[in-house]
Amino acid sequence: MPVESMPDVSGLVVGLIGGTGPQGRGLARRWAAAGQQVLIGSRDAERARSAAGELGVGGGADNATVAAQADLLVLAVPWEGHRETVERLAGDVAGKVVVDCVNPLGFDRRGPFAVAVPEGSAAEQAQVLLPDSLVVGAFHHVSAVLLTDPTVSAVDCDVLVVGDDRAATDTVLALAERIPGMHGVYAGRLRTCRTVEALTANLLAVNRRYGTHAGIRVTGL
Amino acid sequence: MPVESMPDVSGLVVGLIGGTGPQGRGLARRWAAAGQQVLIGSRDAERARSAAGELGVGGGADNATVAAQADLLVLAVPWEGHRETVERLAGDVAGKVVVDCVNPLGFDRRGPFAVAVPEGSAAEQAQVLLPDSLVVGAFHHVSAVLLTDPTVSAVDCDVLVVGDDRAATDTVLALAERIPGMHGVYAGRLRTCRTVEALTANLLAVNRRYGTHAGIRVTGL
Repeated sequence: MPVESMPDVSGLVVGLIGGTGPQGRGLARRWAAAGQQVLIGSRDAERARSAAGELGVGGGADNATVAAQADLLVLAVPWEGHRETVERLAGDVAGKVVVDCVNPLGFDRRGPFAVAVPEGSAAEQAQVLLPDSLVVGAFHHVSAVLLTDPTVSAVDCDVLVVGDDRAATDTVLALAERIPGMHGVYAGRLRTCRTVEALTANLLAVNRRYGTHAGIRVTGL
Repeated sequence: MPVESMPDVSGLVVGLIGGTGPQGRGLARRWAAAGQQVLIGSRDAERARSAAGELGVGGGADNATVAAQADLLVLAVPWEGHRETVERLAGDVAGKVVVDCVNPLGFDRRGPFAVAVPEGSAAEQAQVLLPDSLVVGAFHHVSAVLLTDPTVSAVDCDVLVVGDDRAATDTVLALAERIPGMHGVYAGRLRTCRTVEALTANLLAVNRRYGTHAGIRVTGL
């Protein structure tokens, strides 16, 4: 998408639900470095405040407080706690964009695999639980290792963005562009998010075979 | 994968089952141009011979003859005829590598989507029907438009290769490298092929939004 057609997201307060994990910390750090106002949420408010201090971002609080105060929420929780965490947000995120970057994966002796989700995908589960929010799937394939590595100045990868609301997906595309090296690519409706989530299992297989932190680029853009 | 560790596939006879469609024609043309011996298969032997003549490849015949004569088969049939076509190959492809590049997709007013396959994916369906063959999933995301465009000298994309047999996936990785611009990337077990097939729906959504012929690159390699 040409940059000039994107919405200005520089004034949005971004709240990271489950923001004390590696993915949440990494995104928080990169957005804060780009000048975005960021709030870290956690079940444990003290842990959130401590992480916010370490990362030099706007602030930290319990997930519910962050959900109420932020303009846009990013769900960066482990799949195991996804449903429970999302259910608790319902009252605070009506009308807001909620970005789901959770990968429902399992691991066995043959490696990583996508686990079945009754609603189709983690993002669709979030949309069912948050019918008054605009759920967008994105940031599934961004390596937490690269995001949190201070020696990595640009995180060169594309972010596949899926969702049913054009303004919401445009907002998330613009948020991806705020991180140096990263580009957002609209990649379909929310019903295709299962594929985007499951692709993480393939990238983990790539990592194992080639000893890397693989990401995705879309060619032809 | 470092090129030096790949098997030498230059002597393999590659048979394209359903090779008269756009994907089959495109791959046949590129492999033949690289010096690979290629056979085009079709339900209609005359149509296969005619396509082989047009494309300047080794020869054309009915699918069963090609299955018997080729060292490695590529299934490039429409999803609708997949099961029936694969069932008919059973006797002729025992012990051979069978590459499935079929995308089980549906289309409705909201765009493309992955259709459910009882066996998990087209490739796993092929493996169930061909228990004595080594089924590998690959070449799902290569644009037939770019493959068949004579003005496109290099088809710049990665080919995600999934399968359970190391020698078989290595062979297919090496076959991908035969086409200028194309690189093969091992991306997991056959049970993850559903994701690779379904990703084509996302790339079609990218094509529609951005007016392109999108492909995939894996970063970090």
